Amino acid sequence: MIDGLPMPVPDPGLPDRVRIHEVGPRDGLQNEKTVVPVEVKAEFIRRLAAAGLGTVEATSFVHPKWVPQLADAERLFPMLDGVAARLPVLVPNERGLDRALALGAREVAVFGSATESFAKANLNRTVDQSLDMFAPVVARAKEAGAGVRGYLSMCFGDPWEGPVPVEGVVRVARRLMDLGCDELSLGDTIGVATPGHVGALLTALGTAGVPTARLAVHFHDTYGQALANTLAALRHGVTTVDASAGGLGGCPYAKSATGNLATEDLVWMLDGLGIDTGVDLRLLTATSVWMADRLGRPSPSRTVRALAPQEN
Amino acid sequence: MIDGLPMPVPDPGLPDRVRIHEVGPRDGLQNEKTVVPVEVKAEFIRRLAAAGLGTVEATSFVHPKWVPQLADAERLFPMLDGVAARLPVLVPNERGLDRALALGAREVAVFGSATESFAKANLNRTVDQSLDMFAPVVARAKEAGAGVRGYLSMCFGDPWEGPVPVEGVVRVARRLMDLGCDELSLGDTIGVATPGHVGALLTALGTAGVPTARLAVHFHDTYGQALANTLAALRHGVTTVDASAGGLGGCPYAKSATGNLATEDLVWMLDGLGIDTGVDLRLLTATSVWMADRLGRPSPSRTVRALAPQEN
Repeated sequence: MIDGLPMPVPDPGLPDRVRIHEVGPRDGLQNEKTVVPVEVKAEFIRRLAAAGLGTVEATSFVHPKWVPQLADAERLFPMLDGVAARLPVLVPNERGLDRALALGAREVAVFGSATESFAKANLNRTVDQSLDMFAPVVARAKEAGAGVRGYLSMCFGDPWEGPVPVEGVVRVARRLMDLGCDELSLGDTIGVATPGHVGALLTALGTAGVPTARLAVHFHDTYGQALANTLAALRHGVTTVDASAGGLGGCPYAKSATGNLATEDLVWMLDGLGIDTGVDLRLLTATSVWMADRLGRPSPSRTVRALAPQEN
Repeated sequence: MIDGLPMPVPDPGLPDRVRIHEVGPRDGLQNEKTVVPVEVKAEFIRRLAAAGLGTVEATSFVHPKWVPQLADAERLFPMLDGVAARLPVLVPNERGLDRALALGAREVAVFGSATESFAKANLNRTVDQSLDMFAPVVARAKEAGAGVRGYLSMCFGDPWEGPVPVEGVVRVARRLMDLGCDELSLGDTIGVATPGHVGALLTALGTAGVPTARLAVHFHDTYGQALANTLAALRHGVTTVDASAGGLGGCPYAKSATGNLATEDLVWMLDGLGIDTGVDLRLLTATSVWMADRLGRPSPSRTVRALAPQEN
């Protein structure tokens, strides 16, 4: 378009407003090999909030040994004072929760798996053991007045197990909600999902009594399916979508270089659908270009590349 | 997935079968700077057909001065004898039609514009003048028993005019169908479309009496929207989708490096939806990797990169 923005044409049956849960600073950076200085991370988060992202997952209070890139959580979080956005943080266990609450975190997230193989690989536990580990985390977070998001990974396919049956995902999802999670983010960690599978899972969760209003979707673009899957989820009533500025990040177990759905590609579609997100696409793109320069490589986001070709 | 293919989960309301109109050898290669030997083009087309693509647009009988890359059409076409696929060719005018028919082409395509600006830039004519030029081409092709496809470019946005009103597109589309085109391919030449706009255009065309069964969609992935737009078109009853193996090609007027929807990304989604295309994704990916090696650069298709990371 002349001004580089899409023409809004609503699609009946889609929501009027979508909340984007920005995961770039946490999910995007966690596997980054380049050491990103804590000042850069803080600036990244400030810029994302200034671009209109109302929820920016800031970091993870995981043991530094497991995710060295996020070992600066204790230093980073206090630097975000005054940022006008919700700033959830990942907490793997009670120890992580203690650290997050001590710094004043108001929202936390736990990270579960729909499959035994990934629970074993990522948490060294069975699915049930991981739920037992989360139970006191969720309970104590709620007691402290914090909001709790549950992540459920490998909801569609698993690199060891192949296709993941919907029934198994529903069972673990139900249990996470029963523990007290306020929101559940359904992850296609290896990017294999397609729109019919998305619809089938959302329908099954609705039948099982999980309110769609408390669900989020988290798609990876490994096979180029993330945005089409998001559209399918919106058509099933989902109004919270995870995305990563500039398409930062990727699953270490997936083979591809591409990772999370790029927030810019998502915002292009939502702007084009006339769906309000509060995000300024120009400011967001400028932020991703700035971050790409810090990381020394171009953003994989198609929209970032199209809107800012000279910087990449 | 363990075997690298998605799990088929149908989505109610989508077609059972989709015909892919493969445009890689023509639309994909036409702006390619590297000179591709005619033997490589013939082998590319043979491999695409062997991968199950039943329609492969082979070349263009445009004047060699305008598209030097396709100046070998007269040599290429006879080399495709015995290829088990429909092999349409682009013909810009009566001279091109003569050349194509003389070589035994059974299907031709004309390339129109929905906007005055692109008609002027691409054809040096007004839209009405271009339709006058196409009229005898279509009539004579039909007399000769050849099938005729009409391309309509800039159906959503135009780099000079911005958003393109649906009414204008419908007017030109109707006229192309009235000339006798058997099929009309709606092109988002600069990749700006979003799903609501796609639905609005398809609805308007239906209201204007253009049968959806005779429409195809042709999306570019400049802003990462191509597959989501395709999904929207399928939901509106479209069953013919243009795509380019490996994502080859791009509009010279668009700023991005990314061009056509990659056939592999499309097939991944359609396989996942249980929609029959006749295409073997493994053979197709191998073909795109082979072609990427010939061109000396990796395919931009996410699926190609994920399924064949070592070759790229």
